[in-house]
Amino acid sequence: MNPRLEIFSQGDEVVTGQIADTNAAWLAQQAVQIGFTVTRHTTVGDRLEDLISLLGEIAQRADCCICTGGLGPTSDDLTAEAVAKAFNLPLILDEQALAQIQQFFANRQRVMPESNSKQALLPQGSERLDNDHGTAPGFSVQVGQCWFVFMPGVPSEMKPMYTDKVLPHLTQRFSLQPSNLTTLRTLGIGESAIQELMNTITIPENVQLGFRAELGEVQTKLLFPFAYSDSEKADLVNKIAKRLGDTVFAIDHTREVNSDLISVLDELMTQGQYTLAVIETVSCGLLSSLCVGADWLVEAHYQPTLINSDLQNLALELQKTSGASFALVQAYTGDKNSVMILHNSLLTPQGFYQNTQTIAGALKRKQHQAALSALDLLRRYLQQKLGNSDD
Amino acid sequence: MNPRLEIFSQGDEVVTGQIADTNAAWLAQQAVQIGFTVTRHTTVGDRLEDLISLLGEIAQRADCCICTGGLGPTSDDLTAEAVAKAFNLPLILDEQALAQIQQFFANRQRVMPESNSKQALLPQGSERLDNDHGTAPGFSVQVGQCWFVFMPGVPSEMKPMYTDKVLPHLTQRFSLQPSNLTTLRTLGIGESAIQELMNTITIPENVQLGFRAELGEVQTKLLFPFAYSDSEKADLVNKIAKRLGDTVFAIDHTREVNSDLISVLDELMTQGQYTLAVIETVSCGLLSSLCVGADWLVEAHYQPTLINSDLQNLALELQKTSGASFALVQAYTGDKNSVMILHNSLLTPQGFYQNTQTIAGALKRKQHQAALSALDLLRRYLQQKLGNSDD
Repeated sequence: MNPRLEIFSQGDEVVTGQIADTNAAWLAQQAVQIGFTVTRHTTVGDRLEDLISLLGEIAQRADCCICTGGLGPTSDDLTAEAVAKAFNLPLILDEQALAQIQQFFANRQRVMPESNSKQALLPQGSERLDNDHGTAPGFSVQVGQCWFVFMPGVPSEMKPMYTDKVLPHLTQRFSLQPSNLTTLRTLGIGESAIQELMNTITIPENVQLGFRAELGEVQTKLLFPFAYSDSEKADLVNKIAKRLGDTVFAIDHTREVNSDLISVLDELMTQGQYTLAVIETVSCGLLSSLCVGADWLVEAHYQPTLINSDLQNLALELQKTSGASFALVQAYTGDKNSVMILHNSLLTPQGFYQNTQTIAGALKRKQHQAALSALDLLRRYLQQKLGNSDD
Repeated sequence: MNPRLEIFSQGDEVVTGQIADTNAAWLAQQAVQIGFTVTRHTTVGDRLEDLISLLGEIAQRADCCICTGGLGPTSDDLTAEAVAKAFNLPLILDEQALAQIQQFFANRQRVMPESNSKQALLPQGSERLDNDHGTAPGFSVQVGQCWFVFMPGVPSEMKPMYTDKVLPHLTQRFSLQPSNLTTLRTLGIGESAIQELMNTITIPENVQLGFRAELGEVQTKLLFPFAYSDSEKADLVNKIAKRLGDTVFAIDHTREVNSDLISVLDELMTQGQYTLAVIETVSCGLLSSLCVGADWLVEAHYQPTLINSDLQNLALELQKTSGASFALVQAYTGDKNSVMILHNSLLTPQGFYQNTQTIAGALKRKQHQAALSALDLLRRYLQQKLGNSDD
C-alpha cells in the first residue's frame, strides 16, 4: 500500500476564496506521480487554534504532510508557532537561517526589518529547508509516524523548494511504487453510454476505473498499479478503445492530460499540410477562437442568421473563395432559446461528411458543444483517413 | 459571531490534483460575502470510508457545510451513500427527482440509462435541490447543529444551483450580518497606475481596499462593514470613480461581480437599437465568441492575414455590405510570436474612432487582450455618447 500524504494550505486569502488553491493541485500531482496516495487536502485561515488542531489530526492520519503558507514575517504568519505548540517543540533561533535572511536583504541593499528575524525561529528538532528565492526558510520535522514539510505559500518560492529540497528527501525516506494513469478521451458520447458499452469488459480488481465529464467531452480513466504488465495494460486499453470506436479522439498515458481535441487536430492538419475555412452559427466564433495560433485556419465567418438549407452549396462556395483544403459549415434548426439541432457539413476532396447533434441547456453550453461537434467532424474524418492509409 | 461554514469537495480528480478546486474558492467568496466565517476547506477522493469520517467531523464543528461532487450516475459517485451511512439516513427513491432525470433525457431524445436512476436516491429526511442544468439533483439535510448542502461538482450546474436554490435558504436559516462589497471595474489601466491615482484619497480604516487583476481588467474592491453609512459609501466610490475616469466600465454594488464588459455593451447596444459588424485578427474569433446570444452582432469575420493598412476603407466596406450601425476592424503590426501592436478602428455615424495597444505574452493572453481592447473602444464611444446626450 502506498504511503498516505495530506496537503495542508494555510491562509485567510485561500480560505475566504480570494485566491484558488493552485498550490494544492500542483503538489498533489507531484505526490501522486512519485507514488503517494493523496488522501486529503485541508485549508484553514490564520487562526492559531485551528492550525494546532489540524496539525494534531494529520499527525494521527498521514505518513507525510506537505504544508504551504504562514511562514512570512507578519503577525498573521503562525505556522512555526503552531507546530511548536501542537507538538511541544519550542522555537529555537537557527543562526544559519538568520544569516541567510540578512544576506537576502544585504544583496538587495536593504536593511532587514526586525520582524523578519522571526522567520529564523524553527521548532526544536526540525531540519531547515533553504529558500533560494525569498526570505522564508522552510523546515521539516518528524512527528510520530508522519513526516511534515513546511514551505512558503508563494508559488515561485514553493515550487523550486519542493523540487530541489523536498523531492530528494521524499524518494529517500519513503518506499514508493508509482501507479500509471491512462486516459481515453471521447467526444459525442455520454458518461453513462460509455459505462453501458463497457459493461461486458472485465476490469481487473487492481485497476481503478474512473470517469470525468467536461463540456462535451468524457474522460475514461484507468489507474494501473506499479509494475502492472505492459502487455496486459495495452490489451485492456485497446479493448476499451475498440468498444468506444471513433468517439475516442486521444489516449493519454501520461499523468497530465495534454492531448486535447485542438492539439490532436493541429497535428493532423499540420502533418497533411491541410487548410480549413469555416462558417459558424451557434458556436459564434468560439470554434475559431479555440484554434488560436493555428496557421491552417485560413478564414472563419460568423453568420448568425444562417439556417439549415443547402449546406453543401455553401461549403462548395466557401471552399472555392478561400482556396482551403476543407470547408466546414455549421447550421441549425430549432429555437436558440430551447432545444436545437445542429447540422455540420464538411467538404473534403473525398466528398461531403455530415453530422447532426441535439443540443440543449444554457447558451454558452450550446456554443461550446457546437464548436466541439463541428471540429470533431473534421477530427473523425482525418483520423479515419489516416487509419485507412495505414492499411 | 458569524456562523461557521466549511466547504467540502469530493473527487479523485481534485484530491490527486488533476484539476484545481475552483469551486471551493468560488463558494468561499459567496459565503464570506453574505456574512459567514469560512473556517475550513477539505477535499477527499472517492473512498466511502474517507467521506463518512469527514462528514462526521464536520457535523461536530460547523454550522453549515457546502459540499460539491460525487452526485453523478457512476460507481465512483458515493456522496449520497456516504451521507446515508454517516448519519444513518437510508436512501429513498425521490419520484419527482426520477421524473426530472427522465425528462432531461427525453428532452434530448435519448433513453435514460439505468445507472442514472441512482441519482434519484436521496437520504431520508433530506430536501431535494432541483438541477436545471444537468441530471444530478442536489439535496440538503440538517444533522445536529450543522446544515449540509450537497451539489454537483460541475461548475455550470453547481453555480446556478447555489444562486437559485441554496442562497435563499442560507439567508433564511442563518442570521447574517454581511459586509458590502463595491467593485470598480476598469480596462486599459494597470494596477499600479490605479494605486498611484488613488494615493491622495483617504480610505477609512474600517473599509478594506483590495485589487484584483485579470486578463486586461483590473478590479478595485472596497469592502464596507455591515451597516456602513450609504451616503459616505457613495461619496467614497464616486470620488474614486471620478479619479479613474473613463477607464471605469462598470461599478458593481452586488456581491457578485456580474456587470462584465459584455453585459455593459449589451445594454448600451440594445438600448440604442444598434448593430455591429466585425473583422477580427489577433482575437481570432474570441471577440464574437464573447458576444454569444447578442442579436446586435450581425456578422463577424476572422481574417488572419490582415495587416494594418487602410483600416478605414475596410471598415467602410464592412459597414456597407453588412448594413450594421457600427463596423469594428482589428489589425496589428509586429510578429505574432513576440510583441504586437494592435490597431482597432471603429466606424460610427459620428466618424472614425481608433485605439492602439501594445500586447505581449502568451498567444491566448494576446488573444484575450485583443478582444477586450476592441470591444472597449466601442464601449467608450457608446458611454461617452450617452454621457453627452444626458447633458
